[in-house]
Amino acid sequence: MLPYKSLIQIDRNASVNIYIQVCNNFISLITNGTLQPSDILPSSRILAELIGINRNTVKLAYEELISQGWAESVERKGVFVLSKLPSISKVILPKTNKNNNQKESFIWTNNFKNVTLTRNLQNSILTIDDGFPDVRLAPVDQLMREYRSLSRKFYGKNFLKYGSSKGSEHLRISLSNYLSNTRGLVAPSEDILITKGSQMGIYLTAQLLLNLDDIVAVGTSNYRFADDTFKHCGAKLVRIPIDENGMDIDYLEHILQKQTIKAVYIIPHHHFPTTVTLSMERRLKLLNLAKEYRFAIIEDDYDFDFHYENKPYLPLASIDHNHNVIYIGSISKTFAPALRIGFMSGPSAFINAAAALRELIDKQGDTLLEDAFSVMFNNGDMERHFRKSLKIYKQRRNLFCDILQSDFKNTIEFTIPEGGLAVWSTFDKKINLEKMSQNAEKNGLHLGNGKFYKNEVFDTNAMRIGFASIDENEIEKAFEILKKSI
Amino acid sequence: MLPYKSLIQIDRNASVNIYIQVCNNFISLITNGTLQPSDILPSSRILAELIGINRNTVKLAYEELISQGWAESVERKGVFVLSKLPSISKVILPKTNKNNNQKESFIWTNNFKNVTLTRNLQNSILTIDDGFPDVRLAPVDQLMREYRSLSRKFYGKNFLKYGSSKGSEHLRISLSNYLSNTRGLVAPSEDILITKGSQMGIYLTAQLLLNLDDIVAVGTSNYRFADDTFKHCGAKLVRIPIDENGMDIDYLEHILQKQTIKAVYIIPHHHFPTTVTLSMERRLKLLNLAKEYRFAIIEDDYDFDFHYENKPYLPLASIDHNHNVIYIGSISKTFAPALRIGFMSGPSAFINAAAALRELIDKQGDTLLEDAFSVMFNNGDMERHFRKSLKIYKQRRNLFCDILQSDFKNTIEFTIPEGGLAVWSTFDKKINLEKMSQNAEKNGLHLGNGKFYKNEVFDTNAMRIGFASIDENEIEKAFEILKKSI
Repeated sequence: MLPYKSLIQIDRNASVNIYIQVCNNFISLITNGTLQPSDILPSSRILAELIGINRNTVKLAYEELISQGWAESVERKGVFVLSKLPSISKVILPKTNKNNNQKESFIWTNNFKNVTLTRNLQNSILTIDDGFPDVRLAPVDQLMREYRSLSRKFYGKNFLKYGSSKGSEHLRISLSNYLSNTRGLVAPSEDILITKGSQMGIYLTAQLLLNLDDIVAVGTSNYRFADDTFKHCGAKLVRIPIDENGMDIDYLEHILQKQTIKAVYIIPHHHFPTTVTLSMERRLKLLNLAKEYRFAIIEDDYDFDFHYENKPYLPLASIDHNHNVIYIGSISKTFAPALRIGFMSGPSAFINAAAALRELIDKQGDTLLEDAFSVMFNNGDMERHFRKSLKIYKQRRNLFCDILQSDFKNTIEFTIPEGGLAVWSTFDKKINLEKMSQNAEKNGLHLGNGKFYKNEVFDTNAMRIGFASIDENEIEKAFEILKKSI
Repeated sequence: MLPYKSLIQIDRNASVNIYIQVCNNFISLITNGTLQPSDILPSSRILAELIGINRNTVKLAYEELISQGWAESVERKGVFVLSKLPSISKVILPKTNKNNNQKESFIWTNNFKNVTLTRNLQNSILTIDDGFPDVRLAPVDQLMREYRSLSRKFYGKNFLKYGSSKGSEHLRISLSNYLSNTRGLVAPSEDILITKGSQMGIYLTAQLLLNLDDIVAVGTSNYRFADDTFKHCGAKLVRIPIDENGMDIDYLEHILQKQTIKAVYIIPHHHFPTTVTLSMERRLKLLNLAKEYRFAIIEDDYDFDFHYENKPYLPLASIDHNHNVIYIGSISKTFAPALRIGFMSGPSAFINAAAALRELIDKQGDTLLEDAFSVMFNNGDMERHFRKSLKIYKQRRNLFCDILQSDFKNTIEFTIPEGGLAVWSTFDKKINLEKMSQNAEKNGLHLGNGKFYKNEVFDTNAMRIGFASIDENEIEKAFEILKKSI
């Protein structure tokens, strides 16, 4: 007899009836080949004793097995595995090696097949990041209060059913006003789609615009997740140089004269990673080129809200009277990265198409959370949060840059950023960033190694160092460790 | 002089300084061609009077315009639009026709280009739906309590920063236990990906498995959003007949002998839309075919939790010892559609690839909400909710089918569903569903018209009518209206 005592696992706390559990265990033994067609099952008395359950429970389990068509009862002989079961592969052995088990046996080919996932740090070691907001400043409790209060107010109402794939109408109206007030962007609420962060805006736009072998123009240095998204859609990248005034639009024009470009991806406000701002002259030229060559401009403006001199340029979308721009923004970035809320706006037909595609991806966003954000926009909580955090981030940026200037004069080259949450820092050639990062980790500071910013043409000894997510004390402590680690 | 009083719009409640608003207004006038290079701007005194603001504010605005490079000051003459601005298209007129404005001028071709969005009903008219849960039963307040309490407990902690694209580790562990207890499915937490509802599981799987012109086998009748997702990925569909025992696996085998199939999409538990269950014999045969022909089985098991006889078949994934199955499930469907939580599990490399793709789509889910669901699984709230709603849904199903049997004997043909939340109802040929639906709407009942279930080969006078989301009184009221509307 098989070692049923160890083969059959019962969980008395599970919600499933024990007889169903026993039945399922037998099905598993049959389908994995441990029990073969025509094998006899132990008598109910013996099994009940072996695994310590009531005999009637075993009987119920056998009846269930029989009624599901796995076994048959032969009078005065006992219960047998059905003899005429469709042939079950006999060579499959019970699971022994966990790693082997998880290997798929269907055929697929994909760029992601041998992917190594980047691990996001989950522990609480002091961290200099890439330019994230300080989540401790976000008025999460107000948000939760609104969230819960909305859920009570509308308990049983439509917000819990399926909603529009464009997102909460309340939030779209709030955003329409917000975009108009803060950056002169005219976007009626029906031409706004609420996304899960700006990344979804990039993804939807790329999927809709790009076919196999289409060409997208991006900066020589660029946000890697945007590059990866365009490549995933089958597009090819053409890299355009970036200098201290942003993307070199004359170079782009030169390329346009030779080949068809489907879209230009640009972060004009603060280029990622180098934080430079696209000059006004180049903005106008880019818009004129878009009109002439009929390409789309994907304007990623994820950190518009962070500028410290109170005079940001208007987005391209605000001065584009010809409708070439798809505008992508983020609230996650100004609030907390894990609360994924962003938006995109653009020509009506394009936004409708994006909503239809979004329906295939995840149907819709979290209406309740979106509504809670809408309340926060309308009652002024968001604005208070923006103002407060902007003031704090400016102080941190100043302290940060002062220390960089005084203590790292000979090792780090940088320009004080007018906005955004990070300083683009070029390290002395003699410094090995990989080694520095490892040293820092040992000393209690998590820090990138610059690899994230490199690509096939861009390879400088530099990285973004974010000043926003750590306070004054932490900044001083972090720099002390950094100094030791170089 | 231009009619500045109406051209320049100031919002005194906006967070942006008024001088910046004035400046932005002028930039708009310049870029849309209303103001041309070398045009003179009104004197600060005149403009201040016209639009009712302080003269110094106008001066500040002009300084800003000049510093941004849009205008220049000529001594004793005034402020002028820069003469050497890059040529701005002169033909663009100020916005007049709203509809015209929203038309894109870049080139794109896409299946979604001329999409008409399905509108989800937002009003509170009595509705017979497709088989949705009753959101009034969901313990939303408990969930919100956990959500808020977690947000306080971990205030400033890592949950608000970026997390894993596989989703909350807590919820993955809870789900791993839950899947093992309820359906004998062995899935270690690292092989589970938390999705935004089952739709995202279908989307990720399709994007990873399918290349242009790959073939996917689906039922003659099938869930339309799955069909659309496969088509969006460039795949072709082969339709396999569905009978009272589910998909005809012999027919599938016949197809497999002639052509390569990349994947089979199947809802074995309760086929959508017809609610039939795949027989045990066919399940084993399908698994054997998958092994032999090396295709993937996409098992959509979105309503496993709803079965009224307490003995559901195990999912294919639970008896697949050869790793051909990608298993997709939903929590949204058992809780509330708008709270998008689902999961997928499968071979390790595939789940890792899905996590990498998901990072490009929206980075990650809402960690906090996922953690709150994990608490609800662990403290038994979810199970209490499942049990309670199952009992209620069974009563509603019984009442529903009783009425169908007694009052619609000659008009509607159906089989009592063993599980799920809807009855597949075939109407007498003489009844025009479109007309019936319109009549019902007039009489105060929202009801589908059957179009959603049709495709190029499947065209019956039938539709799913959901019994779960309305209570006993509403069911009786709904049927009264339905009777009048036929």
